[in-house]
Amino acid sequence: MAEYRAPTRDMLFVLNEVLDDQRIRDLPGYDDYEPETVSAVLDEAARFASDVLSPLNRPGDSEGVHWSEDGIVAAQGFGAAYGQYVEGGWNGLTGSADHGGMGMPRVLGAAAMEMWNAANMSFALCPLLTASAVEALENHGSDELKQTYLDKLVTGEWTGCMDLTEPQAGSDLAQVRSKAEPDGDAYRLFGQKIYITWGEHDMADNIIHFVLARLPDAPAGVKGISLFLVPKYILDDNGNPGERNDMRCASVEHKLGIHACPTCTMTYGEDGQGALGYLVGEENKGLAHMFTMMNAARHAMGVQGLGIADRAYQRALAYARDRQQGGRAIVEHGDVKRMLLSMRAQTDVLRAMCLDSASALDIAERSDNEDERAAAQARADVMIPVVKAWGTELGVDIANTGIQVHGGMGFVEETGAAQYLRDARIAPIYEGTNGIQAIDLVGRKLIRDEGRGMRALIADIRATADGSAEGANEHPALSDALDLLETATNTLLEAGRDAAMANAFNYLMLCGTVFGGWYAARIADVAKKALDSGTDEPDFYEARQACARFYVRQILPKARGYAAMVEGGPDVIDCVDAERHL
Amino acid sequence: MAEYRAPTRDMLFVLNEVLDDQRIRDLPGYDDYEPETVSAVLDEAARFASDVLSPLNRPGDSEGVHWSEDGIVAAQGFGAAYGQYVEGGWNGLTGSADHGGMGMPRVLGAAAMEMWNAANMSFALCPLLTASAVEALENHGSDELKQTYLDKLVTGEWTGCMDLTEPQAGSDLAQVRSKAEPDGDAYRLFGQKIYITWGEHDMADNIIHFVLARLPDAPAGVKGISLFLVPKYILDDNGNPGERNDMRCASVEHKLGIHACPTCTMTYGEDGQGALGYLVGEENKGLAHMFTMMNAARHAMGVQGLGIADRAYQRALAYARDRQQGGRAIVEHGDVKRMLLSMRAQTDVLRAMCLDSASALDIAERSDNEDERAAAQARADVMIPVVKAWGTELGVDIANTGIQVHGGMGFVEETGAAQYLRDARIAPIYEGTNGIQAIDLVGRKLIRDEGRGMRALIADIRATADGSAEGANEHPALSDALDLLETATNTLLEAGRDAAMANAFNYLMLCGTVFGGWYAARIADVAKKALDSGTDEPDFYEARQACARFYVRQILPKARGYAAMVEGGPDVIDCVDAERHL
Repeated sequence: MAEYRAPTRDMLFVLNEVLDDQRIRDLPGYDDYEPETVSAVLDEAARFASDVLSPLNRPGDSEGVHWSEDGIVAAQGFGAAYGQYVEGGWNGLTGSADHGGMGMPRVLGAAAMEMWNAANMSFALCPLLTASAVEALENHGSDELKQTYLDKLVTGEWTGCMDLTEPQAGSDLAQVRSKAEPDGDAYRLFGQKIYITWGEHDMADNIIHFVLARLPDAPAGVKGISLFLVPKYILDDNGNPGERNDMRCASVEHKLGIHACPTCTMTYGEDGQGALGYLVGEENKGLAHMFTMMNAARHAMGVQGLGIADRAYQRALAYARDRQQGGRAIVEHGDVKRMLLSMRAQTDVLRAMCLDSASALDIAERSDNEDERAAAQARADVMIPVVKAWGTELGVDIANTGIQVHGGMGFVEETGAAQYLRDARIAPIYEGTNGIQAIDLVGRKLIRDEGRGMRALIADIRATADGSAEGANEHPALSDALDLLETATNTLLEAGRDAAMANAFNYLMLCGTVFGGWYAARIADVAKKALDSGTDEPDFYEARQACARFYVRQILPKARGYAAMVEGGPDVIDCVDAERHL
Repeated sequence: MAEYRAPTRDMLFVLNEVLDDQRIRDLPGYDDYEPETVSAVLDEAARFASDVLSPLNRPGDSEGVHWSEDGIVAAQGFGAAYGQYVEGGWNGLTGSADHGGMGMPRVLGAAAMEMWNAANMSFALCPLLTASAVEALENHGSDELKQTYLDKLVTGEWTGCMDLTEPQAGSDLAQVRSKAEPDGDAYRLFGQKIYITWGEHDMADNIIHFVLARLPDAPAGVKGISLFLVPKYILDDNGNPGERNDMRCASVEHKLGIHACPTCTMTYGEDGQGALGYLVGEENKGLAHMFTMMNAARHAMGVQGLGIADRAYQRALAYARDRQQGGRAIVEHGDVKRMLLSMRAQTDVLRAMCLDSASALDIAERSDNEDERAAAQARADVMIPVVKAWGTELGVDIANTGIQVHGGMGFVEETGAAQYLRDARIAPIYEGTNGIQAIDLVGRKLIRDEGRGMRALIADIRATADGSAEGANEHPALSDALDLLETATNTLLEAGRDAAMANAFNYLMLCGTVFGGWYAARIADVAKKALDSGTDEPDFYEARQACARFYVRQILPKARGYAAMVEGGPDVIDCVDAERHL
């Protein structure tokens, strides 16, 4: 089976040509973000992804993880690969230089993350969770906790994980019941958590859990939840992992996909003394603290969708070039070409969307101009639920199309195409289901903000759609689709919160489709310019132009359907009585 | 896990109220098709599906089949269940009474088939293949072959299978290389076939293979392929299975889904003497003979999509009623209700479409009026690629939504929701990929027919859309969608064959969506009438009305997108050079 080849040329195209890389370079601390550095980092990352992570993907899927009372052993080769990952400095790519990181912007981190996820999504989830742990600790941890744990998490010598969900508390964290009892300066935790990604493994010397639990006198509901740092091994006086904490992985889930990634049920305090933990941030503010790292984590999910989409495309293309039917390779058959183009065209715009929103996060965090920071934050706030939900829906959809390109071989596991669908399928569910993203978009980002962030984005898209005469031909279609989005936005704002909610998902899909059209138009413009000025890479730019055109003509029309669904109104749902009619 | 409950009330609603059951009863030989009989048959079938087949579905998925040199052992319980199935007369439900069948129309057979597939898709594939074998033998076999094999296949005492595909010949059967050498009145077969569903197992006393192969002097290409009947066990002088034929199952595929259904690689003639086979029909006419049974087989695939869709809906609804979040069952949450409604609304119209097209097959076969037969055949010809492709796309889509309703539990295999997606995923691939269905629809059924069959169907839909004032309110939206279909139809007819092909798939999806709107409008009309006249089942009819309304407002709008894609033209695909741009 062909291994993954990272699309570095496509990434550089977006980073340096479609987006404004100077804007990132101008941010304090990012003057190293030079084209040469970016290119060198991507090339190195590409090698690691192709040579180390990708060959483990299919074997890891077949083998899975090995659970015993004593803990979990990762699939063969994963521990060694993780060692190389840490050794190569990849875990610290975007980490602060003060704590052993390379201090690169998120936008570059997102490009690398695409590679890890495309090469091996099960593996990539481990550093992805560590990154959330770093954010939690950096933003809310005491100086002492930071001093003790941050460097090791930034470099990846220790991994991090987030222990949030309980059986009775899925999306509804108000129901969290795990308890934390004070014990001197620290706490003792008791309870059970489920769905803990990489909650237990043998790839690193310690695993630092960030656990939501209730203090004895905590109020009920979301305002009584605190955040605790709970290490697998309690540190000795020298700061090295010592005695094992009173915390176990009771079982792992048998899942549809990401078989090489352990999804753990964790129990705390089974031995009686309780798992030793340390408060992170303020008492009863655990949920608010979690929210600060949510944007980055949700953005990362969209990047997972992107990575799987590109991998599925590469696999399908290789098969279609090889497979002969009716005297020619099936890549030449109209319907197969259509499928491959739809995969590639959507992957192109999704990459632009993921990297653009990552750069919004960079600007929101680093700009020395307050207005610019606020505008970038508002942009990220609107984009991120769309990146997460639309991006992960595309990941599933594109992996599904990849199977279809293979015909019967796509249904046979050894081909590998089926694994991409199985793996991709989790992404619309975790880190807030896509339904919850839609509620976030419409409730929090649209209605609570009175439409300001969305209108600013629509104005930017309008500027592209109205763009100069030398723009590509895709602008009128974008303009029409944008009208639909504008109307739908007004409809939801006028409908009020409750009525808007029933249509939230269709509205989110409308946003994704139209935002995608914006990136397609920008890609088409850049490609046209390059072709008009006599580039020495005509194939590359023609391909980008063709994909952008395909997007505008064959994907963007979906906006008409979504817009009509939003206009269809909420009463088709409200009139249904769940007991009597379903 | 809740077992499957067959939706007999919904089936009776379609069979007796939405469709015209008198028209079936008027056909020669179907005077037994009385409402009481239909109801009794469905109730019995429902019991068998729930009590026998459904409990084996999940264990069969986990266990899979057991291959050895000597043959395949089916998953535990499958053999006994198959025995009960034959014993109960289910295999012969639509079989000719002359050969031990019950002589019921296809439309009732399709309802039963929905149940078998919903309860246990892996199991259902075995009789589904036997049905194709029966058709092949009935239509093309010599009297002697019929006398020897037909009764046993009709009752299901022996099973049948179709051995078509070879590694180098997937969708392109012109490439078939297997050979048949004359040996007295019979033939000796040599070669290899792949993807043979239920090609080997231990559930029946004999397996009758229908194999495509070439005679020594056969012309190249599709006009040199003949059809042979090749029994697993050669019959002795008393017509009982005797010596084993020179034919083996070399291996089985490790697949994404339908794990309990063996997908076999068969080899013929490895022992040297060749597998004994008998010519079915005329020399070199094998492919044409296969085509005669294609409509029924493709229709059955749409029914598989329907069955899985309903099963996934039932599972998701049960979970959503049970699962509490935020102080109420999630079935009350707007977005979950939306997902469930979209599953149910699409299942309702797909059932109507499947049963309506089955009744067209009945009329085409049995009517004593030649014009009526021809019109019904033309209707079936247009509908069946849509039933197959749109129905199986819906099956995947609805199973996928079912996972989403479950949140994290949907990704855990023990829930069962993931299996429905894994199982459903094969249906868009086999029995002619959905891309091939689209080519069949546009090339053979639209352009070659100069649009006559499609225009007749559009006229019938128009009559509903323009329908009487007491019709439900869904008609204007149907009328608009139908305009789009009419325009798209004209566009393709004017574009010519080659240009039309690139848009064939989107056109097919447009057809499915609009035909679905037609059934939704008819369902809404019947429901309204029942409610207006004071039915004693108000919940049932309100539910049908609500689902039809949901379809028209939230699914039918997709037609706008598909229509725009068709109008977008083929040049977005044609301009792409597969070597340089993909």
